[in-house]
Amino acid sequence: MVISLPSLSIRRTFCWFLMLHLLLGPFQVIPGLLGQGSGSLPDELRSLYQEVSEELMAQALNSQVGYDRLALMCDRFGPRFSGSPQLESAIDWALETLRQDGFDPVRGEAVEVPRWVRGQESLLMKGPRQRECPMLGLGGSVGTPQEGIEAEVLVVSSFEELEQRSQEARGRIVLFNAPFTDYGTTVVFRTRGAIEAAKVGAVASLIRSVGPFSMQTPHTGMMTYETGVKCIPHAAITMEDAIMMERMQARGETIDLCLKMEAKTLEPTTSRNVVAEITGSHWPEQIILVSGHLDSWDVGQGAMDDGAGCLAMWEAARLILQQGLRPKRTLRLVLWTNEENGMAGVRTYQRDHAGEMAQHVLAIESDAGTFEPEGFSFTGSEQAMPFLESIGSMLKPIGASRLKWGAGVSDIMHLVADGVPVMGLDVDRTRYFWYHHTAADTVDKVDKDSFNRCVAASAIMMWIVADMPQRLPR
Amino acid sequence: MVISLPSLSIRRTFCWFLMLHLLLGPFQVIPGLLGQGSGSLPDELRSLYQEVSEELMAQALNSQVGYDRLALMCDRFGPRFSGSPQLESAIDWALETLRQDGFDPVRGEAVEVPRWVRGQESLLMKGPRQRECPMLGLGGSVGTPQEGIEAEVLVVSSFEELEQRSQEARGRIVLFNAPFTDYGTTVVFRTRGAIEAAKVGAVASLIRSVGPFSMQTPHTGMMTYETGVKCIPHAAITMEDAIMMERMQARGETIDLCLKMEAKTLEPTTSRNVVAEITGSHWPEQIILVSGHLDSWDVGQGAMDDGAGCLAMWEAARLILQQGLRPKRTLRLVLWTNEENGMAGVRTYQRDHAGEMAQHVLAIESDAGTFEPEGFSFTGSEQAMPFLESIGSMLKPIGASRLKWGAGVSDIMHLVADGVPVMGLDVDRTRYFWYHHTAADTVDKVDKDSFNRCVAASAIMMWIVADMPQRLPR
Repeated sequence: MVISLPSLSIRRTFCWFLMLHLLLGPFQVIPGLLGQGSGSLPDELRSLYQEVSEELMAQALNSQVGYDRLALMCDRFGPRFSGSPQLESAIDWALETLRQDGFDPVRGEAVEVPRWVRGQESLLMKGPRQRECPMLGLGGSVGTPQEGIEAEVLVVSSFEELEQRSQEARGRIVLFNAPFTDYGTTVVFRTRGAIEAAKVGAVASLIRSVGPFSMQTPHTGMMTYETGVKCIPHAAITMEDAIMMERMQARGETIDLCLKMEAKTLEPTTSRNVVAEITGSHWPEQIILVSGHLDSWDVGQGAMDDGAGCLAMWEAARLILQQGLRPKRTLRLVLWTNEENGMAGVRTYQRDHAGEMAQHVLAIESDAGTFEPEGFSFTGSEQAMPFLESIGSMLKPIGASRLKWGAGVSDIMHLVADGVPVMGLDVDRTRYFWYHHTAADTVDKVDKDSFNRCVAASAIMMWIVADMPQRLPR
Repeated sequence: MVISLPSLSIRRTFCWFLMLHLLLGPFQVIPGLLGQGSGSLPDELRSLYQEVSEELMAQALNSQVGYDRLALMCDRFGPRFSGSPQLESAIDWALETLRQDGFDPVRGEAVEVPRWVRGQESLLMKGPRQRECPMLGLGGSVGTPQEGIEAEVLVVSSFEELEQRSQEARGRIVLFNAPFTDYGTTVVFRTRGAIEAAKVGAVASLIRSVGPFSMQTPHTGMMTYETGVKCIPHAAITMEDAIMMERMQARGETIDLCLKMEAKTLEPTTSRNVVAEITGSHWPEQIILVSGHLDSWDVGQGAMDDGAGCLAMWEAARLILQQGLRPKRTLRLVLWTNEENGMAGVRTYQRDHAGEMAQHVLAIESDAGTFEPEGFSFTGSEQAMPFLESIGSMLKPIGASRLKWGAGVSDIMHLVADGVPVMGLDVDRTRYFWYHHTAADTVDKVDKDSFNRCVAASAIMMWIVADMPQRLPR
């Protein structure tokens, strides 16, 4: 058995490992013989990996590379919407830089992605007072005729209220002014608003942007239509304007709007998932997938969502490379395309890598921003938990030791159907929905120290799961 | 001596007052005989006014009127920039509503105000990447030629750095990227940036918006030129873009901008200070001036700055009227015009009311938003402090009992030169400069409960100073 020898001082780690090797014999090196939940190894992970973890943490906390690359990518390419040349340029840059880092192989895997184009858009309030309202059309929406759609507004706060006032909705622009409670609850007006408004005869629909705080900040995002229901234009206005229109309606005032949107859906085009590997030394067929999504919405810089997630995972893997560490299993970095408006990236990956799914030991994603890290969430076998808890205990110095059941991470959730255990990097989400899908999602919102702590937590987690003697139980 | 009899139950107050009257004799009723800092009355104010204060506080905390009027004014008229018809419409509405409230006399006092017009404006970054940058021209700036000004950017963080790099500034657009420390320190780049940039040959100047937080939010505000120095266009960009341009410059990239501004200064026009009184029952010639400024910048709704200050002072005075209280001195509500870009309102008032200045017992202003009230700041005689502290002690239930030396309130600071004691309503300013002079200064940023607590504190302060037996010492 060959034991990979990291470049840093690992004498203590090595001695422990040797003792375990002698003690446990073939169990460490022949994965097929390892039973699930052996219970002994988790307790020993700390002894095996404490020293490497400390070194990775020190490297991550002092790194300049990941954050600077995030800023460079955001500044140079701007928003990276799938179907846009900006995203493809960012993908080219990522592939080239990953090769320079020494990842091998590095490839772009073709993905057919939808192509929605926003075009020019505007919302003019013509009465009771003239005002240009900031707005963002929602992803997938149809446009308006060139002259726009002029109509009176009906403000409602829920689908129930729309139902009750359905007689008033015909020929109107319906505005859903639903205060943000949590994302899952509030986002339904974005995803289904146009359908429900069209059913009662509205000519267009608007939503109060999905977020708890606003500085006249519209939020875009995905929306849907339903077969058999007329497709009407659907856009988000700011919290400020939505609340104002509700006040105006309560005063008995008539609110006249003119909505203009050039939005249209073109033929699909080709994008790429970025895939870069550190091939495993012992069990190269076993894969630890670590990921973020490189595409963003077409506003802001997609810094928090999800440039930072991509760069944090990339930087964590790069630090492992830089340390001369080589894990026993393959570390596969995937920067997804088209998470935001279609999930074609992960779906194509599932199709193209169907034969490998049984060998995906764990899939990790960071897609909640790289705010202060708190730990990881996990969807998989209970028998994996003692291992993850043992690794988590090594993240205490950066406050990231918490483990929660139930990962809510977007791309990799699709892999659960293939039996893959999935894990999300959990962070303080206090301000996540302030910036989510807005022009304000820019580099300055990403704190460098928090980012580096996310890198540290991710590096330690991915290294140990990729290198530990026993395969993480499914 | 006639003692005004409020409609609410004042038996206890009245008895105390009668006892003091008998005890102190002429000292209460002949102000000329009252020495400064008698030291006895301050201690008794609480006994005299505790009950009325509690009643005013209860009324204020449950009021619907002031906040609803703020929302109505903001929604109906939009921003109220001096020189604009919107401000004059808001002034008409205020005068009419004050008359309906029962203030008497109510009048608009003519003020000649400057008229600066923004027009269309834009900032296009043409390289290293194309981007429409959100921006706001600064008040008083000249415009650009119709085709705009195209030039490369020089980013500096201070006047010192500009001096050191003056050779690089010629023919460039200078961007002052100074992080917000405090308003007074940071605002110099807004007020003097165009002067210093022009001195070294720049063709235009930009500032990072003056504020500690941004969601792609440009902040406007006043700027100045200097005789003998070329007038160049001057505008604010967002914190996000300023930081990005600094990063780009640090990478050695060339940043090309095209700035277009139609800004121009027209002939002055006439606006009005709104003046509404509750005439004093005993010493009507003595004036307690209570105020905010009704004008705002030409973006957002001027809700926090300073619609809320106006409506809080107005509502406080209205509650006094509504209670049937009539103070011994005159309560004069003044809603200033042109605080934001010229201070013509207060200056005209000084000129037109010069003969009354000796009889201005106190001038109060609310111009820091109506966030959670903390107390009052004061510039005047030390001998006034025991009185104010005694009144402050009655504001403890709403946490507004703090008294600080040194009022920093904008309009009424001008009255200090006339010997008038001045006082500002102090509030939690944590988020004041987030919204200051931006499109995000809207009604929703004003919390109704905090607003009503500001009304309560103001009502109690103005009532007691206007009614107390001794004139507040100068």
